[in-house]
Amino acid sequence: MKKKNTLTIYDLARELNYSTSTISRALKNHKSISKKTAQLIQRAAEERGYRPNSLAASLRSNNSKTIGVSISNISRPFVSDMISGIETSAREKGYNVIISQSHDSYDNEVSNAKALYDSRVCGIIASLSMQTENTDHFNQFKDQGIPVVFVDRVPNNFQSYHVIIDNYTSAYIATEHLIEQGCKRIAHFAGSQHLNVYSQRKKGFIEALKHHDLEIDERLIVDMKTLSFEEGAQVTAELFKLNNPPDGIFSSNDTAAVSAILYLKKQGIRIPDDVAVIGFNDDPISSIVEPALSTIYHPAQKMGELSTRRILEHLEKEDGMHTTEISVLETHVISRASSVRKKST
Amino acid sequence: MKKKNTLTIYDLARELNYSTSTISRALKNHKSISKKTAQLIQRAAEERGYRPNSLAASLRSNNSKTIGVSISNISRPFVSDMISGIETSAREKGYNVIISQSHDSYDNEVSNAKALYDSRVCGIIASLSMQTENTDHFNQFKDQGIPVVFVDRVPNNFQSYHVIIDNYTSAYIATEHLIEQGCKRIAHFAGSQHLNVYSQRKKGFIEALKHHDLEIDERLIVDMKTLSFEEGAQVTAELFKLNNPPDGIFSSNDTAAVSAILYLKKQGIRIPDDVAVIGFNDDPISSIVEPALSTIYHPAQKMGELSTRRILEHLEKEDGMHTTEISVLETHVISRASSVRKKST
Repeated sequence: MKKKNTLTIYDLARELNYSTSTISRALKNHKSISKKTAQLIQRAAEERGYRPNSLAASLRSNNSKTIGVSISNISRPFVSDMISGIETSAREKGYNVIISQSHDSYDNEVSNAKALYDSRVCGIIASLSMQTENTDHFNQFKDQGIPVVFVDRVPNNFQSYHVIIDNYTSAYIATEHLIEQGCKRIAHFAGSQHLNVYSQRKKGFIEALKHHDLEIDERLIVDMKTLSFEEGAQVTAELFKLNNPPDGIFSSNDTAAVSAILYLKKQGIRIPDDVAVIGFNDDPISSIVEPALSTIYHPAQKMGELSTRRILEHLEKEDGMHTTEISVLETHVISRASSVRKKST
Repeated sequence: MKKKNTLTIYDLARELNYSTSTISRALKNHKSISKKTAQLIQRAAEERGYRPNSLAASLRSNNSKTIGVSISNISRPFVSDMISGIETSAREKGYNVIISQSHDSYDNEVSNAKALYDSRVCGIIASLSMQTENTDHFNQFKDQGIPVVFVDRVPNNFQSYHVIIDNYTSAYIATEHLIEQGCKRIAHFAGSQHLNVYSQRKKGFIEALKHHDLEIDERLIVDMKTLSFEEGAQVTAELFKLNNPPDGIFSSNDTAAVSAILYLKKQGIRIPDDVAVIGFNDDPISSIVEPALSTIYHPAQKMGELSTRRILEHLEKEDGMHTTEISVLETHVISRASSVRKKST
């Protein structure tokens, strides 16, 4: 039933070089489309044998009241907090939530999207896998008028709702916090540069160094694959083999930062006196490690709540099918013992 | 469509006082049912206007290749490991997994079960919420021949597949480990006694004390609601107000155990010399806290893998619809610094 043996609105859009939004409106004689364009599109659609997918449409029309979530990995506290926010807003309005995880694999994400589509979700909230460059697998939702919200890890060019934090500024203030504590040679644990969240953090880091006239030493900026516990220790070990090792670390997540702290302590290096460390996310481990890890507060729960609200608002709207709207939430530094040098405050 | 306006096999089973399995087989003239019984049931079904739900059956027959998971809380490392195991086995065979979490609320679990049912899952793997006493919401799956596997937190009387650990023995060996380290007055952080996992752990704890002729002091056995970080600190504070405080703690999870360690350290109480502590699950925090937490290895990933295998085996079988099969996986003690007293080994 779902096999592409019939022409979809998406095929038409590609062939006629119009957006799916324009095609959809033209077929409905929407007032925002000129009569001429509408007629042109309608004729082309007819010639190509396009039929609105009435079975799919009727399935959709009995709103399933279930929101699908496609995320990387539920074991990350940031992700589970986000989902908890999604669920809170959903339950308030009598909606259920079903979740699928990609484990940062593009193939998994594609097959999850199909499973969620086949489950007849009424909306989808997605945070991209580390591998995802092509987001065509989310078109099936848009084609059927099912709202798509991207949260945190968002694509660059997919017309939909986006809920993000200001990663650039967050990284800038994290780096500036270390500079205020007297750090001169700060290392950065960067994530996959392919994803907006990590590339923006790296930019914010570099900009803060520049602003404070500190040298940018490329050897201190490490693009990591997964920012895992193992990778955190490995990269720290490499950095501290340098003749001139860093006196500060800004890690793009807490996991790698905690791993760095544990590794450095074993080497007899003092935190924060020899090396000040700051992470990102405020995961529970950041207050359990000793010294407790300074970090960036991440409004994961709020991002989840807002994502659901976008879905629900969309479902209430008559004709908001192809809106792009970007919501940016605020963060702040949480100062703890891993970075605060008493002498310098 | 899903409203109970038609007679189901389940209604028949209740009315005729046969198991759904017998009814189902009788209607199919299965060889395991005597001719007489089969005829009797068929006539009764006909009289009552029973019709096999052919629409539902046809929906089911195009196997959705999606397994539904109903669990308490994805943020618990044990749960995310279990799901990771479920997914690994599922993906190997080309199946997807969708997850819903109850946050330990019975109402959420009921509405999640409906959402998963409506999503047309081909099997369901469930771990009960802390509140769940009635498991009727899982009947809808059984009624349609959809296999149900309960994992870890399982009901007492629901005919299906169960995948569990031996909670009694695990608690027994954890307690014995503390006794071997010289503990005489061991406290137990017990979970909700309503759930098999926690009631069995309490039994194992008490049995180990009895076996080693240690006094059972009811004040040292605390039935906790959630075994949260907050509750762990609170309960520890209460225990250490006693004239004769404990010299060992066996906690039913790692979260509360880590919280106890952090609280006791603040009070200047030495771990493990003054108080030896052991948790349960081997969560990541157990190796981050100092001293590192001794704990019970929990084969969460394996339990997940086995649960999926049960679903897939069932789907391959022609007629295994109402099997009860209990799989029990092994655990062991992981000794770390929070319990091992060098002098006493």
